[in-house]
Amino acid sequence: MEFASKLLEKAVDEMSQLPGIGKRTALRLVLHLLRQPESQTFQLAKALETMRRDIKFCKNCHNISDYELCEICANPHRTNEIICVVEDIRDVMAIENTSSYKGLYHVLGGKISPMDGIGPNDLNIQTLVDKVKEGTVKELIFALGSTMEGDTTNFYIYKQIQDFEITTSTIARGISVGNELEYTDEVTLGRSIINRIPFESSLKL
Amino acid sequence: MEFASKLLEKAVDEMSQLPGIGKRTALRLVLHLLRQPESQTFQLAKALETMRRDIKFCKNCHNISDYELCEICANPHRTNEIICVVEDIRDVMAIENTSSYKGLYHVLGGKISPMDGIGPNDLNIQTLVDKVKEGTVKELIFALGSTMEGDTTNFYIYKQIQDFEITTSTIARGISVGNELEYTDEVTLGRSIINRIPFESSLKL
Repeated sequence: MEFASKLLEKAVDEMSQLPGIGKRTALRLVLHLLRQPESQTFQLAKALETMRRDIKFCKNCHNISDYELCEICANPHRTNEIICVVEDIRDVMAIENTSSYKGLYHVLGGKISPMDGIGPNDLNIQTLVDKVKEGTVKELIFALGSTMEGDTTNFYIYKQIQDFEITTSTIARGISVGNELEYTDEVTLGRSIINRIPFESSLKL
Repeated sequence: MEFASKLLEKAVDEMSQLPGIGKRTALRLVLHLLRQPESQTFQLAKALETMRRDIKFCKNCHNISDYELCEICANPHRTNEIICVVEDIRDVMAIENTSSYKGLYHVLGGKISPMDGIGPNDLNIQTLVDKVKEGTVKELIFALGSTMEGDTTNFYIYKQIQDFEITTSTIARGISVGNELEYTDEVTLGRSIINRIPFESSLKL
C-alpha cells in the first residue's frame, strides 16, 4: 500500500501491530479518527499512554490494579486459604462475574509453551510456590484452559507443590448448562460421564 | 464488565469507540499492549496524536497530504484536464495502485446520505464545481460506489455542472476479470450486457 502521507503511514503501521488488525483495518480505524473531532484521538492516545505508564500489578496475585494490592486481595471478606490459578486477568474478570468464588487468585500471565518460547521462568510460578510454602493456603484450584499448554502448566505447578499439605483441584469440565447432548464433542461428553456427580448434590446448585 | 483498574477501564472505553471494536476486543488489544514493551504503546499513542494534529488535506483535491498540495496534484506529469471524483482517500489509493490513471482526483469526503444527516454542504462539492467553472477541466469521472447514496451524489454533482462544456463519465461496472458468469449477480450481469464494448477494443487491454 502506498500512502499519500508519512504521518498517516506511521499511524497505520503502529496500529497494525495490534493482534488481529491488518493494514486495511488499521487504515479504516485511522481514517475514522480523522473524521472525528481531534479530542477523540487525543483522549485515546492519552488513555493508552497513562495506562501503560501508571498501571500496577498486585504484588500478591499479579492481577492488574491501580494500587500495590488489588481490591480482591485487599478485601477482608475473602478467604486467603483458597487460590484459583488463572492464565490472565480476563479469567479473573470472568470468574468474578459469576459471583461464585470467594477465595483469592493467582495470575500466571500465560501458559508454559515451548513452541512460543515461554518457559516456567517467564510466568509468575515461583511466587505461587512461595505462597504455598508459607502454609496458609489449603487449596489450589487450577483454572487454566484445557489445552496441551494448560495441562503442561498445571502439571508443572503440581510437581512443585506436591510435597506440601495442600488440596489441588481443577474446575469441572462438562456440558454447558442449557446445551444439548447431541451437539457436544465426544471428549467433553466422555469426561462429563466419567466425572458424574451425585444427583442430590446437583439439586443444591 | 467490571475492571480491576480505572486506568484499564478508561483505555478500553476509548479503544472501543473505534468502529468494529467492541469492549471484549478492546480489552484483548489493551492487554496485548500491556504484555509488550512500554515503547510500543508510547509510539502508538504518539503516532496517532501527531497524525491527528499535523496531517493536512490537499487544498486542491482534499486528499490527505503532509503538504499544502498533495504529491498527485503537485506532479507536473499528470494532466489536470481529467478529474476522478471519489468518496475518500482509500479510493485514491486503490486507483493509484492500478497505475492506469494519469489525471487528478477530487475527494468528496463521503456521499450524500440524508439518513445519516449528510447533505451536499458537508461534502467537498462546491470546490469541485468551482474547479469546473474555471474551465481547465475537460472530463469528470464519477467513481463513487454504486449505492443509492453514490448515485444520488453523482446526480447532484451532474446537475450542478451540466451547463458547462465538460464530458462526464462513470467507471465501468461489469463482471470482475476472472469471475464466472454463473456466480455473478443479475444486476451486474445485466449491466455488463447492456454496456458491452466492441471486441476489437477489448483486445487492446
